[in-house]
Amino acid sequence: MTALERPDGTASGPHPTPAAGTRLDRWLGSYAERTHGMRASEIRALFAVANRPEVVSLAGGMPYLEGLPLDVLGDLAQRVVATRGTTALQYGSGQGDETLREQILDVMRLEGIEAHPDDVVVTTGSQQALDLVTRLFVDPGDVVVAEAPSYVGALGVFRAYQADVVHVPLDAEGLVPEALEATLADLARQGRRVKLLYTVPNFHNPAGVTLSAERRPRILEIAARYGVLVLEDNPYGLLGFDREPLPAMRSMSDEGVIYLGSFSKTFAPGYRVGWAVAPHAVREKLVLASESAILSPSNASQLAISAYLATCDWRGQVKAFRELYRERRDAMIGALAEHLPDASWTVPDGGFYTWVRLPDGLDAKAMLPRAVTARVAYVPGTAFYFDGQGADHMRLSFCFPTPERIREGVRRLAGVVSAESELVSLFGTGGQAVRGDVQSPGPDLA
Amino acid sequence: MTALERPDGTASGPHPTPAAGTRLDRWLGSYAERTHGMRASEIRALFAVANRPEVVSLAGGMPYLEGLPLDVLGDLAQRVVATRGTTALQYGSGQGDETLREQILDVMRLEGIEAHPDDVVVTTGSQQALDLVTRLFVDPGDVVVAEAPSYVGALGVFRAYQADVVHVPLDAEGLVPEALEATLADLARQGRRVKLLYTVPNFHNPAGVTLSAERRPRILEIAARYGVLVLEDNPYGLLGFDREPLPAMRSMSDEGVIYLGSFSKTFAPGYRVGWAVAPHAVREKLVLASESAILSPSNASQLAISAYLATCDWRGQVKAFRELYRERRDAMIGALAEHLPDASWTVPDGGFYTWVRLPDGLDAKAMLPRAVTARVAYVPGTAFYFDGQGADHMRLSFCFPTPERIREGVRRLAGVVSAESELVSLFGTGGQAVRGDVQSPGPDLA
Repeated sequence: MTALERPDGTASGPHPTPAAGTRLDRWLGSYAERTHGMRASEIRALFAVANRPEVVSLAGGMPYLEGLPLDVLGDLAQRVVATRGTTALQYGSGQGDETLREQILDVMRLEGIEAHPDDVVVTTGSQQALDLVTRLFVDPGDVVVAEAPSYVGALGVFRAYQADVVHVPLDAEGLVPEALEATLADLARQGRRVKLLYTVPNFHNPAGVTLSAERRPRILEIAARYGVLVLEDNPYGLLGFDREPLPAMRSMSDEGVIYLGSFSKTFAPGYRVGWAVAPHAVREKLVLASESAILSPSNASQLAISAYLATCDWRGQVKAFRELYRERRDAMIGALAEHLPDASWTVPDGGFYTWVRLPDGLDAKAMLPRAVTARVAYVPGTAFYFDGQGADHMRLSFCFPTPERIREGVRRLAGVVSAESELVSLFGTGGQAVRGDVQSPGPDLA
Repeated sequence: MTALERPDGTASGPHPTPAAGTRLDRWLGSYAERTHGMRASEIRALFAVANRPEVVSLAGGMPYLEGLPLDVLGDLAQRVVATRGTTALQYGSGQGDETLREQILDVMRLEGIEAHPDDVVVTTGSQQALDLVTRLFVDPGDVVVAEAPSYVGALGVFRAYQADVVHVPLDAEGLVPEALEATLADLARQGRRVKLLYTVPNFHNPAGVTLSAERRPRILEIAARYGVLVLEDNPYGLLGFDREPLPAMRSMSDEGVIYLGSFSKTFAPGYRVGWAVAPHAVREKLVLASESAILSPSNASQLAISAYLATCDWRGQVKAFRELYRERRDAMIGALAEHLPDASWTVPDGGFYTWVRLPDGLDAKAMLPRAVTARVAYVPGTAFYFDGQGADHMRLSFCFPTPERIREGVRRLAGVVSAESELVSLFGTGGQAVRGDVQSPGPDLA
């Protein structure tokens, strides 16, 4: 049975999303193997509701853009098109604009990475880099090792390429080296082919924890020993609240790591510009794969970002974001302590998310419709596992709503949790236990 | 042996591009099956030279952008970011901006397509739509039927998904229905699974021919009878020189066709905005696949194009492009008649390309280095076949150089052909015969 065939979530919910094909789909018999079982997440429909203004969404990973100097950015966009339009509006290099690739080196230098512009491949957001790396390495049935929990959008990519994801626990210091070693040893004994170790080392999505400096070389050493390529996904690394960034894993290993970076969280996602840094031979293939997928990334987007980096105080903007998100983190953690004393949570020192463990017996997925009715939304923990774990957790985002709205959201959530807890104490269950579902919940959850 | 393993081009050329992996690639053993054999086209390095200003490139499919009102477009870009920045710079819908999808309906109505905004999926250029459709439908070993010759970028996608492409001849009226029927019948007898019929009906790339109105319903009927989904790729449809567009195949079949459209040739490629129109169930899966690949298409790009469509005379701009490209077509055809009387060529009534058959005994791929030395570039015909045919043809583009440069380019080309022909008459060959190579030649060849 391939990963795509497992019956995730198919038994849950009163209004199941239409499955892979209905009798109305004339092409049902034509789909590729990888497409069978592809379906919209059941929480997707809920999020359409959750996006209404009266709902406090603690679900999305959307950065807060109102702090950006939109007038200045508008002028930059104008200048790029008016003065460099025959380049900005033309096809470009499949690898990406060379000036931008040089500027990306400056960004990465903040995390200790020394690289050459030739090592960088610009992509349509780092999500496309995830897709391309998986395309290059993963055959159906291959194993990708990932943290437990792990970024929902990465799990979706691995599933799309019919990988099998094996989770390794993390704790307050990130991925646990001993657990990684044990898992890789076990997989080796089983003769499984492990292709990638996928990790979000900084301000983890969804767990909010950071891989300690001490563990980084150990993780690299273990991966190297088992011949596993490390896929270091680092959209949040510059958004630490309390200290300078830790050295990226890529700064310690040129050949053992593919590093993914993004402007989506430190600047803005709407241009869809991310990048990969890969060992030379892999980088060549990444460019070919990207050309096959999209010909070339948008020159208009790349030149706009390049102009921003060249003429604006982007370091100051990142600092402003750090302060903004720290204030929101404080609002979130304060409200949790005040209103949800029976839950537990991680206290992130950067990024967008905290990972909340519900009081015993509560099921975050089953509870979600009631929460949305109470005008608050979150992402149930099951979204972040390949195998249906995580029902006792939820991801709360503090990136987008104001501190006041965050506090209001947590208050509403506490009301829902309290009502659910009462049900549990009366009947022993707060809702139907359901399996995980990592199919695409939509771009809101980036 | 899968498609990826066939030894295309491996025996040719004095300086072969480094193959899939060298001893330097530590990850050589980790690549997926689909990645083996992936390599840069041998003509790629030549094109780096061909892009020098002293070379007349008749190779690229880059539209001529100097006719665009760049000042106006700059102002639009400014307004989008300054006044709608929190949308333009944010994540968006995986399916694409709804207003733009409505405007796309207006564009498609010019070719007789009636659809609903829900039927449209906006992609990162129509190349991404090609990639996603192939991802949804093609298992390794499945057959895609395509014209002979066929768009190099589509062949690259089919190869990336390990499809086997079977070519069907075209003539002056496009794809030949009888040949299609015979091929599908033959494949059915062999028990092969044919998933897609890929066709560029208008101003074919590279052949320059258009599928006649009379043949369109016949092709659809044959495809439907064999249960084959038609993938109608139509970037050039509005760029006819002499008459109104023919009705799209999609206008005759809602359920049997996936239609691909693009702003790259009728407006500008640098925003990387294309789209697919698909039957309902397929469209749902396309959105999910696109979210997995890139989360969402660029809002900044979509809003810029939407503003252009809403406030500029885009129909007038298309008309201006038609006149510009007609003049260049005339320059190209006139120069061919004057300088290359021993060759033959198609006379396109729209689009960017003519397809030239060389005098007997000449090999376009073997001749290319000499042409580049003579400061003129083209794409050898082998790039447009899956199986190494086409060495006696070349694609000449008249979209980008001015008429004067086109004439100069053809003059230079005639000098090379003449010298080659002399060699052939003396020694019986003008160069080494080589196999085809449809791996990515880079985005210049779109």
